[in-house]
Amino acid sequence: MRGAKPERSPELEHIFGVHPIVEAIAAGEAIERIVVGRRRAAERELSLLLREASARGTRIEIVDDESGFRHFGDARHQRIVAIAQPFRYAAWSDIRTAVQTDADALVVALDHIEDPHNVGAILRNAECAGAVGAVLPDRRSAAVTSAARRAAAGAASHLPVARVPNLVRALEEMKRDGCWVIGASAAPLALEYTSIDLTGRCVIVIGAEGKGLSRLASERCDMLARIPMRGKIASLNASSAAAILLFEAVRQRSARTLVTSRTSVQSPVNP
Amino acid sequence: MRGAKPERSPELEHIFGVHPIVEAIAAGEAIERIVVGRRRAAERELSLLLREASARGTRIEIVDDESGFRHFGDARHQRIVAIAQPFRYAAWSDIRTAVQTDADALVVALDHIEDPHNVGAILRNAECAGAVGAVLPDRRSAAVTSAARRAAAGAASHLPVARVPNLVRALEEMKRDGCWVIGASAAPLALEYTSIDLTGRCVIVIGAEGKGLSRLASERCDMLARIPMRGKIASLNASSAAAILLFEAVRQRSARTLVTSRTSVQSPVNP
Repeated sequence: MRGAKPERSPELEHIFGVHPIVEAIAAGEAIERIVVGRRRAAERELSLLLREASARGTRIEIVDDESGFRHFGDARHQRIVAIAQPFRYAAWSDIRTAVQTDADALVVALDHIEDPHNVGAILRNAECAGAVGAVLPDRRSAAVTSAARRAAAGAASHLPVARVPNLVRALEEMKRDGCWVIGASAAPLALEYTSIDLTGRCVIVIGAEGKGLSRLASERCDMLARIPMRGKIASLNASSAAAILLFEAVRQRSARTLVTSRTSVQSPVNP
Repeated sequence: MRGAKPERSPELEHIFGVHPIVEAIAAGEAIERIVVGRRRAAERELSLLLREASARGTRIEIVDDESGFRHFGDARHQRIVAIAQPFRYAAWSDIRTAVQTDADALVVALDHIEDPHNVGAILRNAECAGAVGAVLPDRRSAAVTSAARRAAAGAASHLPVARVPNLVRALEEMKRDGCWVIGASAAPLALEYTSIDLTGRCVIVIGAEGKGLSRLASERCDMLARIPMRGKIASLNASSAAAILLFEAVRQRSARTLVTSRTSVQSPVNP
C-alpha cells in the first residue's frame, strides 16, 4: 500500500470563539491569523490572548465588528476567528518503520470513529500510553480537525497519525511487521481483555461509537478483547474503552519488566 | 451531614437542536415538551423524532418558525427546542446505605469537575464499572445537566448521584463507613495505581481538569494513585483517568475472586 494521499490542498481551518482559540493555542496549534472585531479587540480579556498569539508569530487582523465577519458565515464567531493550519499527518511508511524498529511498539487504529472529539480523546490516551503512532482511514472517519486537536490537548503534536485509504490493509501490513492486532469488541466470543497478552508489538483497534468494529476489521484481528460491563448500560464511550485497553497494555509491559528483573535478581540464588 | 439540599425549584432545562434532542431521548431523559417551528415540523427527518417523542408522552407544541422562539434567546435552536425535566439526585443517605450494606461498594467522587461532558463521561464509566453511586459538590462543580446526561448516554438514569454541600465531609463519612479513599493524582509522592489495593469498599476521587484534586480533598485521601505517563504530555483527560482507575478496581476484584475460588478448590488437595 502506498502512503496516505498527499493532502489535496492545505485547507485552513476556522476556529470560532475565545475559549476554543485559547485551547488551540494551548494545544500548540499553528495559528496563522486571528481576525478580531475592532471593539472586541479593545476588551480587556482579549488583550492577553492577542499579545501571546502575536508573540508566537500569529498575524492579528483587526476588522469592523459587524461587516468584518460576513464571509465566515453565520457561525457564532463572537467576533473573533482564528485561522489555523491543517494537521500534518505522518506518512504511513513512518508508522511502519516505527513498528519495525520497536519490538514493543504500541499502535492504535481508529476504525471509522465519526466524532472529532472522540478522535482527539483517543489520540490523547494513545500519546499518554506511549504509543508510537495512530492510524485512521481517510474516508467515513472524522479527520484530525481543529476540534479533534483541541480534544487531544496537545497530544496530536507529539503522536504521529497516518491517514490511509484502507484500514484493513494497514492492519494486515502491521501483522506482517509482527504486530498482534487486538480489536475492542462487545461480542460474546471476545476474550476478557485482561486475559490477553498485550506485550510486544501490538495494535489496538477501536470501533465507532454505537456500531463497534466493522466486520472487515474485526475479521483481521488476532483477538477480540471484551471489557466486562458491571452495570446496566451496554457499553463504554470509545475513548474510555481505548484508555482502558491502552493502559492495560502499559500495566502488562511494566509487570513483565518487573518479573524479568526479579527473575534475574533471584536466578543466582535459585538457579 | 444532612443530605443534599432539596432542589430549589424544579428548573426545566432547554435542549436545542435535533441531534441533542435525539441523544436525550436515547439517554432516557424525561422530555416534557418539544417546541418546534411549523415549517420545521413538516420536514421529513423530524416526523419520526416527533412521533416517537409523542408516543412517550411528550407534548409537541407547534409555533411560528420565526416569532415562536423569541423567549429562548438567540441560541442556535434550529427551530426545535425540547424542555426536559431536571435530573433527580439521589439522597446522600441512600449512597451511604449502599456503601454500608455492600462490602465491595465502589463509589466515584467528582472533585469540582467543571465540564458537564466530563461529569457525564465519568458517570458513564462509573456505571459500567458497577459503582454503587457517585457524589459531587453542589457548588463550583458542573451539575448533572442535560448536556452531562447526554454524555452519560443513559448511565445517569441507572447510577445514584448525590450532590452534597461539602465533598470533604462526604469523604470523611465514607471513611467511617469503611471505605478506602483513593485520589487520582499526578503528584510525585502518589503510588502507581496498579500497586494499590482497590478491592473492598473504595471511593475513587477524580479532580478537575487542569487543576487536579483540591488540597483539602487530597489530604483526606488514604492513598494517592498515579497513572504512569509514557508520552510527552502531562496528563489524561479526567474521564479517561476515571475509566482506568475504575476498571483497575474491576480487574482486581475479579482477580481476587479467581484466586479465592482457586484456593478453595485447591485446599482439600494441599491442606
